[in-house]
Amino acid sequence: MAETTSAPTMKDVAREAGVALGTVSKVMNGIPVGESYRVRVEEAVAKLNYRVNSYAKGLKTNRTYTVAVLVPNLVSPFFAKLVNCLNRSLSARKHRMLLFATDYDPAQEQEYVILAEQQKVDGIICLSYNPALKVSESVPLVSIDRYFGAQIPCVSSDNYGGGRLAAEKLIENGCRNLAFMRIGSKLTNEPNKRKDGFISACEALNVPYTLKMVDDFTPYSAFEEFLREHLRGGKLDFDGIFCVTDALAYQTVRSLRSMGVRVPEDVQIIGFDGTQYFGDQDYFCSTIVQPLPEIAETCVDMILEKGLSKAPSLVCLPVMYAYGGTTKA
Amino acid sequence: MAETTSAPTMKDVAREAGVALGTVSKVMNGIPVGESYRVRVEEAVAKLNYRVNSYAKGLKTNRTYTVAVLVPNLVSPFFAKLVNCLNRSLSARKHRMLLFATDYDPAQEQEYVILAEQQKVDGIICLSYNPALKVSESVPLVSIDRYFGAQIPCVSSDNYGGGRLAAEKLIENGCRNLAFMRIGSKLTNEPNKRKDGFISACEALNVPYTLKMVDDFTPYSAFEEFLREHLRGGKLDFDGIFCVTDALAYQTVRSLRSMGVRVPEDVQIIGFDGTQYFGDQDYFCSTIVQPLPEIAETCVDMILEKGLSKAPSLVCLPVMYAYGGTTKA
Repeated sequence: MAETTSAPTMKDVAREAGVALGTVSKVMNGIPVGESYRVRVEEAVAKLNYRVNSYAKGLKTNRTYTVAVLVPNLVSPFFAKLVNCLNRSLSARKHRMLLFATDYDPAQEQEYVILAEQQKVDGIICLSYNPALKVSESVPLVSIDRYFGAQIPCVSSDNYGGGRLAAEKLIENGCRNLAFMRIGSKLTNEPNKRKDGFISACEALNVPYTLKMVDDFTPYSAFEEFLREHLRGGKLDFDGIFCVTDALAYQTVRSLRSMGVRVPEDVQIIGFDGTQYFGDQDYFCSTIVQPLPEIAETCVDMILEKGLSKAPSLVCLPVMYAYGGTTKA
Repeated sequence: MAETTSAPTMKDVAREAGVALGTVSKVMNGIPVGESYRVRVEEAVAKLNYRVNSYAKGLKTNRTYTVAVLVPNLVSPFFAKLVNCLNRSLSARKHRMLLFATDYDPAQEQEYVILAEQQKVDGIICLSYNPALKVSESVPLVSIDRYFGAQIPCVSSDNYGGGRLAAEKLIENGCRNLAFMRIGSKLTNEPNKRKDGFISACEALNVPYTLKMVDDFTPYSAFEEFLREHLRGGKLDFDGIFCVTDALAYQTVRSLRSMGVRVPEDVQIIGFDGTQYFGDQDYFCSTIVQPLPEIAETCVDMILEKGLSKAPSLVCLPVMYAYGGTTKA
């Protein structure tokens, strides 16, 4: 434990090392100086336990080495893993993460953007459901999943390709009558393209399909009713269902089994996200896996390295299919 | 979108409002001034879109309104939910969270503590597995689960009580030969008391028990071998198992079922943590639920409100039992 005396300053380091203040400053900022000077400064830093005051540094360089991350919550495994990947990507570049769980509250989200401006973060990476979110141009911002318009870069999975892939896999596994079930936002967001990709593959391969789509905040029971309507003599009209998320797929499997329908023997189910038990064990269901490490790396790269002025307005990263027991293969 | 002109200063606000600089400062810091002055300052702030530069403020007041949170990762649902609760508790008090996922790397953890010192955070809340973690007394620190010694307050669940409760529930449900399985740290940490509580209840109620405890980094197969050793003619020696975490309970249920042992008919299983599918759906197993919102609130309260000089060295918060399908009740 250090003694609680007042913290040493750069001047104390210069005095201890017997060098000019400018030399200490150069060493602290990684600017080359003579080897013997560097060693003397580093020894003095170690001896005095000198720490750069990053608030003072932040004022001077106008960089905080901090990026704000906004997500709805960390209870959903998808958001939690995304934040985990962003944290790693930022750490690898010696940046810190200011984390805000917005809890889907638009007012709170806006407040966080203002807070971020006050803090002068180097950037914001956000997954927002706020249709009216206002962001100052002075804060570099990358959006995940939600498309705000050409001036704000958006990074996401290839949701369209994922929708296609889900339909193709179900058909490849022998399904001949498909359904797509979605609960989701009306906003222009990338996950909505899962439906379009699904439809395009069904039409290309000439397989009939039915859509059941409800808005956010509609209870799950709406899907259970839909399934019951299509249950005739213990047999479901569909032999393959693509669910917009693994969470919905999980509930759907439970519902079907409680109705006496076997999964995957009678009906095959594919979800979306790539959610694993306890974060790193089996998949909850057969699923389209989102490339979260790559999404995180791309966002951090844009904010910190490449800058946003020349960034594309949309970057879609490749997904893959993973077998998880709710399909035949 | 705001125009990208240079940011207005407190002087600009004073000029716009026609008041003294000190008056603006008072209003910004919540110090009472005459009502008409306050209104004029607030109108000027709104008109100019003035934002407090919290870096400058941090230098002056020596407060950053930021707390660093260190956890191993966010992939484990337990850590993710803990961070979610901490984020809420901090937000409710207008504080921000600097989040570090340490990935169990002791060197990285130490680096983060140093970073936190540089950043001059108002405090650190950490769940650390680093036996040699060095913390400066100048940084208020609250530890979750890991007991560092009397000078650093530790907040955790009532792990001892939880261990007792697990044994009592199994016995209440008819079990007459129990086992406890643990994978865990050798460090002085609170979760290790789950074993002691379990043993105390078995002894008080005169029920025999067997312990199988392995260190971190031992593969799960060690438990599978243990179970096989106790499997005679398709029947397990134990009729109740308390697993140190829900993750271990989940794997144990799978192993037993693959050996043809029925859960909960032949063997009842209780885990620990209170992990739910997708963060808010069913419990993975019958479990001892950790009070994460209360743990988070207690940590934040200690760091921000009560101060640490008079804090108790250990606070244990009450757990509860939840039925999750792997016991008879």
